[in-house]
Amino acid sequence: MARYLPTGGPSLTTNPDLAKERSKATFDPTKITNLFDGSREATARRQKLAALIRNDPTGIFSNEENAYLHRTDRHVRALAKHVRLIELCRSIGIGQDTNGEIVLDKDWFNLLAAVADDLPTSLHWVMFVPNLISLCDEEQQSRWLPMCRDWKMIGCYAQTELGHGSNVRALETTATFKKESEGGMKGGSWVINSPTLTSIKFWPGCLGRTCNHAMVIARLIDGDGKDHGMHNFLVQTRSLDDHTLMPGVTCGDIGPKIGYNNMDNGFAKFENVEIPRRNMAMRFASVDEQGVYEKKVVSDAAAKISYITMMQVRSLIVMEAGRALRMGTTIAIRYSAVRKQGFKSSKTMEENQILDYKQQQHRLLPLLAASYCFFFTGKKVLNDLKAIENRLMNLKDGEATITKTEVGDIHATTSSLKSFTTTITADGLEDLRKSCGGHGFLQSSGFPELITSYLQNPTVEGDNQMLPMQVIKILLKLVKDVQSGNIEDWKKTDCSYLLSPVGAMLNGEEAKPCSVDSKEAMKKTDVIRDAFQHRAASLLVSVAQQIQTDVMEGKKFEDAWNGALIQMGRVSRAHAAFLLFNNFISGIEAEEGKLIGENESTVLTDLALLLGFYWIEKDIGDFLEDSYFNAEQAAWARACTLEMMDTIRPNAVSLVDANDFSDFQLKSALGRYDGNVYPAILEASKKDPLNATEPGPGYEQHLKRLIVDGAGIYSGTSSRL
Amino acid sequence: MARYLPTGGPSLTTNPDLAKERSKATFDPTKITNLFDGSREATARRQKLAALIRNDPTGIFSNEENAYLHRTDRHVRALAKHVRLIELCRSIGIGQDTNGEIVLDKDWFNLLAAVADDLPTSLHWVMFVPNLISLCDEEQQSRWLPMCRDWKMIGCYAQTELGHGSNVRALETTATFKKESEGGMKGGSWVINSPTLTSIKFWPGCLGRTCNHAMVIARLIDGDGKDHGMHNFLVQTRSLDDHTLMPGVTCGDIGPKIGYNNMDNGFAKFENVEIPRRNMAMRFASVDEQGVYEKKVVSDAAAKISYITMMQVRSLIVMEAGRALRMGTTIAIRYSAVRKQGFKSSKTMEENQILDYKQQQHRLLPLLAASYCFFFTGKKVLNDLKAIENRLMNLKDGEATITKTEVGDIHATTSSLKSFTTTITADGLEDLRKSCGGHGFLQSSGFPELITSYLQNPTVEGDNQMLPMQVIKILLKLVKDVQSGNIEDWKKTDCSYLLSPVGAMLNGEEAKPCSVDSKEAMKKTDVIRDAFQHRAASLLVSVAQQIQTDVMEGKKFEDAWNGALIQMGRVSRAHAAFLLFNNFISGIEAEEGKLIGENESTVLTDLALLLGFYWIEKDIGDFLEDSYFNAEQAAWARACTLEMMDTIRPNAVSLVDANDFSDFQLKSALGRYDGNVYPAILEASKKDPLNATEPGPGYEQHLKRLIVDGAGIYSGTSSRL
Repeated sequence: MARYLPTGGPSLTTNPDLAKERSKATFDPTKITNLFDGSREATARRQKLAALIRNDPTGIFSNEENAYLHRTDRHVRALAKHVRLIELCRSIGIGQDTNGEIVLDKDWFNLLAAVADDLPTSLHWVMFVPNLISLCDEEQQSRWLPMCRDWKMIGCYAQTELGHGSNVRALETTATFKKESEGGMKGGSWVINSPTLTSIKFWPGCLGRTCNHAMVIARLIDGDGKDHGMHNFLVQTRSLDDHTLMPGVTCGDIGPKIGYNNMDNGFAKFENVEIPRRNMAMRFASVDEQGVYEKKVVSDAAAKISYITMMQVRSLIVMEAGRALRMGTTIAIRYSAVRKQGFKSSKTMEENQILDYKQQQHRLLPLLAASYCFFFTGKKVLNDLKAIENRLMNLKDGEATITKTEVGDIHATTSSLKSFTTTITADGLEDLRKSCGGHGFLQSSGFPELITSYLQNPTVEGDNQMLPMQVIKILLKLVKDVQSGNIEDWKKTDCSYLLSPVGAMLNGEEAKPCSVDSKEAMKKTDVIRDAFQHRAASLLVSVAQQIQTDVMEGKKFEDAWNGALIQMGRVSRAHAAFLLFNNFISGIEAEEGKLIGENESTVLTDLALLLGFYWIEKDIGDFLEDSYFNAEQAAWARACTLEMMDTIRPNAVSLVDANDFSDFQLKSALGRYDGNVYPAILEASKKDPLNATEPGPGYEQHLKRLIVDGAGIYSGTSSRL
Repeated sequence: MARYLPTGGPSLTTNPDLAKERSKATFDPTKITNLFDGSREATARRQKLAALIRNDPTGIFSNEENAYLHRTDRHVRALAKHVRLIELCRSIGIGQDTNGEIVLDKDWFNLLAAVADDLPTSLHWVMFVPNLISLCDEEQQSRWLPMCRDWKMIGCYAQTELGHGSNVRALETTATFKKESEGGMKGGSWVINSPTLTSIKFWPGCLGRTCNHAMVIARLIDGDGKDHGMHNFLVQTRSLDDHTLMPGVTCGDIGPKIGYNNMDNGFAKFENVEIPRRNMAMRFASVDEQGVYEKKVVSDAAAKISYITMMQVRSLIVMEAGRALRMGTTIAIRYSAVRKQGFKSSKTMEENQILDYKQQQHRLLPLLAASYCFFFTGKKVLNDLKAIENRLMNLKDGEATITKTEVGDIHATTSSLKSFTTTITADGLEDLRKSCGGHGFLQSSGFPELITSYLQNPTVEGDNQMLPMQVIKILLKLVKDVQSGNIEDWKKTDCSYLLSPVGAMLNGEEAKPCSVDSKEAMKKTDVIRDAFQHRAASLLVSVAQQIQTDVMEGKKFEDAWNGALIQMGRVSRAHAAFLLFNNFISGIEAEEGKLIGENESTVLTDLALLLGFYWIEKDIGDFLEDSYFNAEQAAWARACTLEMMDTIRPNAVSLVDANDFSDFQLKSALGRYDGNVYPAILEASKKDPLNATEPGPGYEQHLKRLIVDGAGIYSGTSSRL
């Protein structure tokens, strides 16, 4: 497998500790790499694309200066990278098919990943264009998509407002119809307004400085002054000729953030901004020249395809959580193999590898396992959704689409997975950073940027604290359907594992506790799967009963619901844990004999076992409280965690090597493939502009006044406060 | 109580929701403020000092531009603030007593807190000078302290090296004696060297650009070439005249970090740097002109005072953890009272205050309680240490100093507290940030800087993952002493609560489970205290037994120890939880009738109860596994958490108001006292330099090439990859 050593850095051989780690692997990392990519050919192609970026003759893609630039300069340079990327894509036909249509393919995502820097304009491709396709009618698409493809039109999706986040119904921006006869444009127009301070659009990515169009969500007021709720309007914000603001539009960047600062998230205020009537996205509803509003009859399948497309973003988030964790564990595990601390004994100067300490393994290896686990679930959900989409698109006359239950299941599954995986990843990346000790604090460790860019994920696309409510709404429906024996539709869903235990519990059957009678007997994936299944069902039933009891005892439903919110979070996590573990196991089974062999399958199953026991250990109270586990079993689970760490330890470095991140992508002095971390740290230090002059930039004007001139030095005559 | 509204911002009245919250308080926030400060007078004085900074005519202390400046500019401006601060201090006699001696008093800390920005040079005062006092003999002090006071000598403490962190014995820097007769200075000299790349000093604060002296820890090689291990040497790094580097010294800043970027943490390489013999810190050992090494006889009391002084830093860290959390909860709770999301019902447009959602309360209120809790323990530990220090300083002939057991206890207590409180605070601040939704991502929320500056704390002064080992070493000694009946010395310590339960467990007595038989009976601080006491003892005994069993079964001690590391972390946390809870309760009791009355005492006890139940709920498995709690009691504990949140909810805003942080200090658009968050956010956005030009700074050079010139636009003839 080709490795990408940094060029220009000190040329050294590989750190001997890392080399030794690699020699211990019991499996072939290349096979795992192929598994992540999808095939051997896909790996080769990804590497080819990555080389294209890394070796681009303009040198514009270098990330070497990232940490030293002022935000403004980073933003400007990110735009330069973007333009160069489009140029490259055009020259090799990526991102558009042979007819010049826009394609969001794997190549394109691989190129973006190879750039390894946030590009403000990627949202145009990933969010704006798909949104335009799903919301606009064919005539609109035929006018606007070619402009998008040619990057004449650069767009953003403008939903959230300064005072309003995920509660779409509360948005305040208005689009009021104006007939031609009342002074509107030919055929009528929309007048867009931000009536209050809190209605100012706030947060949309690239709205501030980069885009020239925004798909604005606004309250539609028809020709008769009637409010029809939220609809989408394509508003031109800047001139296509010189990028100046259109009349009535004020917009700008929302200012520096904890991370993701290449991106110009923006604000926009609209004051009587007039746009043509046909700039309302008209696939699902329309307004005629007289301002008469009409809902369009759209086939059930078409509406559901649109929904399925949205859910695909969620599965990408799960995949991306795994990928971010894989980057983090690559850095932390390699560095923990190189870094030494603490003498092996009082008689020697030989120090231990940090990776040999159990509490360090306890931080790193479960996250390593999670990084692999998320991949399998991300892949499964994406495949499932694609299959549904294909089926809907090729539906024959009379064939049923998918049921409301199935749609609910997708919603519950993706919501709980999004919330669970992004929480683990955000917290996990920070803990991986901490596991690197002081040097993890350095930007050159790669962690600060990795973490702070990631931190948006627990909040966007459904706040992780709010999503569990939606999960529970659907799972409570399942409980109700089990009660009424209406379970056919559920059998086809990811939630089907809940049917039998929930049924038994509702019938008042005594739950069977775990029957395992030795530590060795515990070390089976089935034991863990059963435990997670039981827990999810048990917590779900108890929330259902709690709400029911509260209401029966006279509480208002809203209060009963509110009182159960914390427990809903537990149910949602339990549901996600079952799905993730189950998909991990079945994913490994499905791949053995294809891209991976028995050796790889064994190692992956070791990771699954570790993850299972670690999650049990973390939430052991869930299993003890209803006596599903007894104290002895709890102790065995803990012991199994320790033993699985011993089993995985020799493969740890090779398991992160299998991720096949280049040094160019990792941007980390600590996570280098060759393990020569200390020269790299020092090299990075020296580049700080603070070191450009000698003495430093604060001396002449300030420090000198203190040291040499003795600013206000104590004379014994000062007046004490 | 005087409040500090920002000047220059939009002038608005207080947000009505916040005003309503304040009207609901059942206690007097001012009394709590006085409690935090120590007295009513102390509050007044702190406010007076804060006003001095805020209203300084130079305007240099403004933090308005923090988020928009490049790192270099922030560092330079921090130096300017520092020089001005010293000037101010000199003019009002703060930081030095009437004889001009250096004083590290409350005034000085309050001024630093009022500045509300990291000053690179604060370490000179807080760390370098106290270190010099504790390590140098009187003659050395008389030469160097006046230079420190006058800021001629600006120093740092240079211990860690590029390849070596907390394992002091592994440091590689050398100080080799050179006799006058061999070409050394008059009376002999030391030659300081960094023999390897990994030996380069790395991390010391203000070593890079600001200081001109460093107290360097190096391996002492005497006149005969014998290695005497680590000692301290005062090395001049820069000229006092023009700040240029001294011969043989290379140093610079270590580069950008995740936070704390005002500070020039530095690296330094020494190549045959020669310093006078008497620049070795000679309080505890000396070397004569012939290079002969001699350990000095220092009184036991003197050695112990030096140790106690070091431990005081740890208690300050606990105090500081509380203070950082208090800042975080102030921002998050005020904003949660102002921010609305989700309709009250489907029939109204009225939205809920975020603060009314139970899962939001579950994030905010336990951290509010912890922020108060840490204060009481920080204060207690600091007072205890001060009392010991005083006793040692005024020791009469023949009086005993303190026992090894007492020293061990202090070490175990401060280590477990440091690790526990800084972990909760670092994680808690990030969760508070997340609880603010998208706007918490903005620098203008105040969170990014608060968090990233804080993040060093889990790592410095003993890594949080390593400290538990030290705690356990001492607690295992306690177990051994209980076994041998040697417990007299322990009775005087903070660990004394462990003696009786550990004794009973070692005797094989069946532990008495919690006897509470109703939810109401559970709501007592004694119930929680007993539970925490039992848990700490139980986990401790089980670790002791696990190590013993492993060794008896043939494991090497090192491996048995390593295998118990994860469980040691649990013991250390359990120990800290008991101490913190216990000190919280006894602290409240001790204050009632002094600075606070019954109303305040009730509210504080509510916080203690919430914290106790929350911690039990989080680790419920600890209490279920050995059947200390049964399932019913576990459910009651969870119900009590909910009920205590209801009780505290009306006082939430007033409890953060009591912290009395000014808007100048909070630096947060979300946490403003007047609650006018949305105008403040927008105001902050507009200041970003990205918004200085129209169109933005990336257009002419880059975006235009894409939009107008069509960079490499698809012509249908490209060669596909």
